[in-house]
Amino acid sequence: MSTSTGAYTALYLIESAATLAFALSGVVEAARRRLDAVGVVVVAGLAAFGGGTLRDVLLDRRPFFWVTHTELLWAVLCVGIGAMVFMRRRHLEPTERAMQWPDAVGMGLFAASGTQISLSMGQPALVSVILGMVTAVFGGVLRDIVCNDIPKVFRDHRPYALLAFLGGWVLVLADTLGAPSWLGLSVAAVVATALRMLAIWRAWTIPTWLG
Amino acid sequence: MSTSTGAYTALYLIESAATLAFALSGVVEAARRRLDAVGVVVVAGLAAFGGGTLRDVLLDRRPFFWVTHTELLWAVLCVGIGAMVFMRRRHLEPTERAMQWPDAVGMGLFAASGTQISLSMGQPALVSVILGMVTAVFGGVLRDIVCNDIPKVFRDHRPYALLAFLGGWVLVLADTLGAPSWLGLSVAAVVATALRMLAIWRAWTIPTWLG
Amino acid sequence: MSTSTGAYTALYLIESAATLAFALSGVVEAARRRLDAVGVVVVAGLAAFGGGTLRDVLLDRRPFFWVTHTELLWAVLCVGIGAMVFMRRRHLEPTERAMQWPDAVGMGLFAASGTQISLSMGQPALVSVILGMVTAVFGGVLRDIVCNDIPKVFRDHRPYALLAFLGGWVLVLADTLGAPSWLGLSVAAVVATALRMLAIWRAWTIPTWLG
Repeated sequence: MSTSTGAYTALYLIESAATLAFALSGVVEAARRRLDAVGVVVVAGLAAFGGGTLRDVLLDRRPFFWVTHTELLWAVLCVGIGAMVFMRRRHLEPTERAMQWPDAVGMGLFAASGTQISLSMGQPALVSVILGMVTAVFGGVLRDIVCNDIPKVFRDHRPYALLAFLGGWVLVLADTLGAPSWLGLSVAAVVATALRMLAIWRAWTIPTWLG
Repeated sequence: MSTSTGAYTALYLIESAATLAFALSGVVEAARRRLDAVGVVVVAGLAAFGGGTLRDVLLDRRPFFWVTHTELLWAVLCVGIGAMVFMRRRHLEPTERAMQWPDAVGMGLFAASGTQISLSMGQPALVSVILGMVTAVFGGVLRDIVCNDIPKVFRDHRPYALLAFLGGWVLVLADTLGAPSWLGLSVAAVVATALRMLAIWRAWTIPTWLG
Repeated sequence: MSTSTGAYTALYLIESAATLAFALSGVVEAARRRLDAVGVVVVAGLAAFGGGTLRDVLLDRRPFFWVTHTELLWAVLCVGIGAMVFMRRRHLEPTERAMQWPDAVGMGLFAASGTQISLSMGQPALVSVILGMVTAVFGGVLRDIVCNDIPKVFRDHRPYALLAFLGGWVLVLADTLGAPSWLGLSVAAVVATALRMLAIWRAWTIPTWLG
């Protein structure tokens, strides 16, 4: 029972952190695009909740994370409004690159938590890893589409979905080896996030179509 | 029991009116874009049923409105085909602005009915208001995306989602004060629609990012 | 019981064939766009599984086809990777037109299977035909959107959604006449696919808005 409570707490902390990281990436992106106040909050909300919501719809899982924890809705609302009030243009200049960090953190955390949730609902490993990838990727895709941008995941030719996929398999491996769920979640999230940061820093690219 | 039947009737009337208003906005938009006959019907259908369907998927509510009331599917099919047959170019000149009126009516009605449906399924107030906003906004977003347009809700810098959000809170307030549901629905829909029309007429804008 | 097993087998074969046909159309499209290895697999997967997944979400039907039959996930993964390894530029030159054939086959098969599945869950005929059309069209729409293309279904002014709609009604008719389900499925799929091929070959167009 205490293990189960511990696992639940680890999952809650990771989902909340991923949600706030993506909300931040949405605020920065909306600010760069000079959206109005409503646009900032909408983009932050889509980035924060889009991936987890699609995962839960596919898994037919209710209530959604943001219905059980409405404090996260209020938090994202406050992040959006706070950013409007306190951020100024001089804060935005460096953000084109800075925005990649919360995006990488959210990606790694959601890949881990999405895979874990799907496994714990009895889905096969491959399905769980794909749903982890969907959780990690879809919020950012919505954010970029609403900002009228080609989604970063399809655009920058650096591994992104691939690393979410890899992070999911790390979690499946940890689970198979019998590691406690907080450990598997942490290792998978750290691996996916760290590799993404390395990929940006070292400009890794994915092999393209051979001509 | 008679109250419950009355509430159901009010909801049915409001959902039907909103569906037809959005179908009309879709026909006008598709006509402006010179889509073919199939495109007109598809755009009318997406505008009419998109918002309510996404709301019901998120709420895990079945059957959909258009499955219980297939007469609405036939009605939208007839609106689309009728428009193809009877409308001519001379009817279309003024529609860029004229299309805003059915759009505003559909938005107000769906914001009210979406919030009401979500509340009656026991969702928290903030969640219900957000789902009302989703109902009000998503049909128009699909309509504009299929017409290869940036969604109006993100484009015109006039309050839209914000007014749907406000209309939802009016309904929550009426509900909390113990008003009968037909009254809350009507007041919320009128407030959201009237404010949207005022916003277009008086060219109200939302504060943008402070530079 | 043997009838039911036979019906299930026919449905399984048709869904699998449609899935692979759309995966192939996705690989060809992604290759034409010079996407990277991950992009090819993602586009193939969205084309293959997008339509059936949306249908099942709308019908609230679980598990998804690709969860019960994970061998199809592996097959699409292999098709994507195999294409990357074995296809070369000289294979791609003629594919702009060649890609229309797997697309037409997938459309006809999914229109039939989608309508059948919806009917067998007790949905009304019009709803079932619409869900068959959604199954047939949505995978291709996702494929084209991710490749940053206007969806073919809205672009080429040749009947596509209309033929999926027609194929669905053929299946409803066969069902009403008491034909065994494998026969209805086959006839509906052949009619929709053959008419689509004819439409491309003979350059049939849909009447556009009358000026």
